[in-house]
Amino acid sequence: MAPAVPKSGDAIFASVDRVNSELFTLTYGAIVRQLITDLEEVEEVNKQLDQMGYNIGVRLVDEFLAKSNVSRCVDFRETAEVIAKVGFKMFLGVTASVTNWDAEGTTCSLILEDNPLVDFVELPDTCQGLYYCNILSGVVRGALEMVSMKTEVTWLRDMLKGDDVFELQVKLLKQVPEEYPYKDDE
Amino acid sequence: MAPAVPKSGDAIFASVDRVNSELFTLTYGAIVRQLITDLEEVEEVNKQLDQMGYNIGVRLVDEFLAKSNVSRCVDFRETAEVIAKVGFKMFLGVTASVTNWDAEGTTCSLILEDNPLVDFVELPDTCQGLYYCNILSGVVRGALEMVSMKTEVTWLRDMLKGDDVFELQVKLLKQVPEEYPYKDDE
Repeated sequence: MAPAVPKSGDAIFASVDRVNSELFTLTYGAIVRQLITDLEEVEEVNKQLDQMGYNIGVRLVDEFLAKSNVSRCVDFRETAEVIAKVGFKMFLGVTASVTNWDAEGTTCSLILEDNPLVDFVELPDTCQGLYYCNILSGVVRGALEMVSMKTEVTWLRDMLKGDDVFELQVKLLKQVPEEYPYKDDE
Repeated sequence: MAPAVPKSGDAIFASVDRVNSELFTLTYGAIVRQLITDLEEVEEVNKQLDQMGYNIGVRLVDEFLAKSNVSRCVDFRETAEVIAKVGFKMFLGVTASVTNWDAEGTTCSLILEDNPLVDFVELPDTCQGLYYCNILSGVVRGALEMVSMKTEVTWLRDMLKGDDVFELQVKLLKQVPEEYPYKDDE
């Protein structure tokens, strides 16, 4: 049997079940608003969004591997490209570009020019410290941890703070031995 | 100019921006879990989900009217059909059927056999009183209020509680004079 050929992000996105982007955007907005009400501190909201994203990333990786036919990436560089071109497209319907590599090939930036999470969103003055899209950094971190890569993920640019794009810096901290993603009793 | 012809739910769904259904499902699950942690009482979680849905429904109606070319429905009966066949399809990618009309034509049920919100979801014993999909009842209530119909929306059957379908009863309480959906300063 011929090995499965990795599919393009477009092809996968066309084949998966989808919901209306506006419904998703408004639902996400409802979470953020709820967290701001409940937690009060913007720093805590950032943390909670990141943690929610992490939990989601840990789960999404299964669907990603099953649907994309992507096999093990040779290195972090290839992994970053796959996340940007296939992963973002598959889940959010937009692609990112990968830039700003450091000399060691362990730190890069994912650039998003379009981001369905922030349609109709404006940050009020009281929330200037909020990383509204922090769920995304959590998703990337969680998904990468499931394929043995421990990372630190940080927003460097944010369109809600007046930047021209979203820039998410991904720094590889270490590659850990592969673990089965779930405990047996889950 | 010929009047715009109402589009089918399929046609609209194909034309709008979408995100992966699994991402939406997991994100919604993260909200529910967060609310359970923060509010503790299942009754309060039901209320909060309904209120979030209401706020979303109030906003979604604009996109619905703009994209669907649906004009004013002649009565509640037609409105219910449009919600089931066009609204649900447009936002969630699934259609509902409309049944169980009362003699006055003011109460009916929307039946959902498929519901992307509950993929992978099981209610733990401690949450048996939870209406997990209560955001949907809120969306329907909010959207209808924007087109002058004050309703009461109640879950009669719930697949997470062992029923074979989701049944959402919609009861028209009164038709109120149409109001502009947003305050001028919003």
